[in-house]
Amino acid sequence: MNASRPLAESAAGTDIDQYVDDLGRQARAAARVMAAAPTGTKNAALAAIAQELESHRTAILAANAGDVERAQAAGLEAALLDRLALGEATVAAMAEGLRQVAALPDPVGQIDDLAYRPSGIQVGRMRVALGVIGIIYESRPNVTADAAALCLKSGNAAILRGGREALASNQAIGRCVQAGLAAAGLPATAIQVVETPERAVVGRLIASPEHLDVIVPRGGRGLIERISQEARVPVIRHLDGVCHVYIDAAAEVAKAVEIAVNAKTQRYGTCNTMETLLVAAEIAAEVLPLLAVRYEAAGVTLRACERARAWLRDAEPASEADWQAEYLAPLLAVRVVDDLDGAIAHIARYGSGHTDAIVTQDYSRAQRFLREVDSSSVMVNASTRFADGFEYGLGAEIGISTDRLHARGPVGLQGLTTQKWIVLGDGHVRQ
Amino acid sequence: MNASRPLAESAAGTDIDQYVDDLGRQARAAARVMAAAPTGTKNAALAAIAQELESHRTAILAANAGDVERAQAAGLEAALLDRLALGEATVAAMAEGLRQVAALPDPVGQIDDLAYRPSGIQVGRMRVALGVIGIIYESRPNVTADAAALCLKSGNAAILRGGREALASNQAIGRCVQAGLAAAGLPATAIQVVETPERAVVGRLIASPEHLDVIVPRGGRGLIERISQEARVPVIRHLDGVCHVYIDAAAEVAKAVEIAVNAKTQRYGTCNTMETLLVAAEIAAEVLPLLAVRYEAAGVTLRACERARAWLRDAEPASEADWQAEYLAPLLAVRVVDDLDGAIAHIARYGSGHTDAIVTQDYSRAQRFLREVDSSSVMVNASTRFADGFEYGLGAEIGISTDRLHARGPVGLQGLTTQKWIVLGDGHVRQ
Repeated sequence: MNASRPLAESAAGTDIDQYVDDLGRQARAAARVMAAAPTGTKNAALAAIAQELESHRTAILAANAGDVERAQAAGLEAALLDRLALGEATVAAMAEGLRQVAALPDPVGQIDDLAYRPSGIQVGRMRVALGVIGIIYESRPNVTADAAALCLKSGNAAILRGGREALASNQAIGRCVQAGLAAAGLPATAIQVVETPERAVVGRLIASPEHLDVIVPRGGRGLIERISQEARVPVIRHLDGVCHVYIDAAAEVAKAVEIAVNAKTQRYGTCNTMETLLVAAEIAAEVLPLLAVRYEAAGVTLRACERARAWLRDAEPASEADWQAEYLAPLLAVRVVDDLDGAIAHIARYGSGHTDAIVTQDYSRAQRFLREVDSSSVMVNASTRFADGFEYGLGAEIGISTDRLHARGPVGLQGLTTQKWIVLGDGHVRQ
Repeated sequence: MNASRPLAESAAGTDIDQYVDDLGRQARAAARVMAAAPTGTKNAALAAIAQELESHRTAILAANAGDVERAQAAGLEAALLDRLALGEATVAAMAEGLRQVAALPDPVGQIDDLAYRPSGIQVGRMRVALGVIGIIYESRPNVTADAAALCLKSGNAAILRGGREALASNQAIGRCVQAGLAAAGLPATAIQVVETPERAVVGRLIASPEHLDVIVPRGGRGLIERISQEARVPVIRHLDGVCHVYIDAAAEVAKAVEIAVNAKTQRYGTCNTMETLLVAAEIAAEVLPLLAVRYEAAGVTLRACERARAWLRDAEPASEADWQAEYLAPLLAVRVVDDLDGAIAHIARYGSGHTDAIVTQDYSRAQRFLREVDSSSVMVNASTRFADGFEYGLGAEIGISTDRLHARGPVGLQGLTTQKWIVLGDGHVRQ
């Protein structure tokens, strides 16, 4: 089915199977307790974990220093080393993150739309935990604390499997998480950090619907695609962010320029950064020369279509590959389109369904863009950089989903829950 | 990966691939039009399809008669022949179903929770179509019209693949659907009925995320398990309905008896029929003799645990297999449990997560049952038979999901949609 090397492949196959089954059974048992845990108890656990992280800061940093040293010796590249390294500030931020999650409202048990039906029963929906969540992530050890906090608050159990290079750091953080859970009277096994670097564990986990209800991979495209290919468990995926801003003929020029500059330059490496700018032909002569000055000042290199290059003398010619690129760098593709239809067609063909924005004062075109662009976030007169769990008011996010089912866009506590139907009768039977 | 024979296996492999790719491309193109189609246009199409079904009733019944004749000759069993056969009343019911779906509110474009954020942007969620839905079903040809109606109203395109034995019936209905779509100015290819009995089509379809966004299998457990195993596309599954009623020690006896009788006997073959009755030890002596009389009158055979058999002299002894059985027949497993904890533990171990009910006057136990029983529908003092899209006010259902993600329980129009984030600014940029 799949040409790439399967994840599950190990000499120690049966040991791995046993290890994963133990993890899974413990998680499943803990999940039942977590699903029914009172809000106050969960918040107490979060506070206790924050406390544990602070009191064990020295041990965490020592474990992390060991990881960094081994990774350097193994020749890990600088960007990954940078992600791996923790400092006092990172540990403080992890503790602060846990307290912020404690302060968020508890989604579990919330009842929506409870209403009487003609039969006399009341029908509504109650928000409940998903069960056991598998998080598979790469270098950053602080994900261990962040993911634990969100899974705990949403009443789930979790199995966390971080990068091999971060093993000692993740275990040190994991011990704090388990101590905090125990201090609040919750099962320590509600959050388990995988203790072996064996890759086969991942292959076995993602093929075990009896152990996991959903998998959230966090990392590069390679990791996410491999997991999607091989998983027998639903995956909440975050693939590319090829985000667009379309400057419509009816845009206010000043707004358009500020949004197009912010969407590209506020941060280059984030998934909600604009990668392609689309400009209506009618307004190109007015807006592109202004943008050329601003992008040059910011050090952004432009790759433009022929029509756009009339106004962007320094731009390189764009190729087909540029319309598909997620640069994550000071590089921008620019294309002049005829009108809104041209912009929508371009986004449908080349976009990744992440975040796209229109700048326009025209009511009908704003409405059409909102309705017809099929992305997880669609914006009018705002920078694509707003596509973020904190900016949307979720408080924290476990990731951004580019999938369509279940959770779309930034995934917070609600995305880690589901709804069941509840029916309240008083002896009602069906006729 | 999978020991069973794969669905995709055909001498005419490349032709099938080409055929499925054509279906998929046409569906994808139609889906874009459907997603943006105005409510009035979709309702006009539904009315036109109803009209087409009525005017082509003779042709549909003739095609169906051919299917029935071939199926009889091939020795199809009586129950399946019964499902396959259409009559004038079924055609009228299909037309009526289409008009009912037209009368339901359009979920597409509905905006929830639009609110200002501290940054000044407004953030909310807009309900949008899922895209292309694959429905794979067995004998009943009326599913063709029902599924088409729900997919159309929810702004989706659909590829429908019915049972091989119903091929001519489904095509006759499919022609009416396409004529109705065209009459309303919508693409006829929005709803396509697979025209070949080749099983390889199913294998190819369910492995094509580029063509389908979600698959809804409707049929027996074998069909659903095979599709789940092989699908590379998300599946909304409906597995077993092993539903419980728990009569608590604090139940009102009259309510308990009526609910336990209705949940078992109102219909035997439905997935929300009670299959196991749990009774608290404290109330068993009072309630079981009354129920024994009622079940005997209804012709229900009982299989009971040792403790229950003290009050149910005619019951056979229940074995482990009875606790797991979905009888779909006038058969009932009965077990005496110590208390609420025993009931919750039994349901967690043997239940299928479909529908479970408690009968009690005790406030705290009702609350605990609602919170702790992990099923798609959880009820207090009501018959499990209420777990149904019509009874819940969905208007119609495409099926009942026993999955946890995305859609749980009865799936109506809303379950065939998803939500995207919308952001409304006025030149806002991120700081």
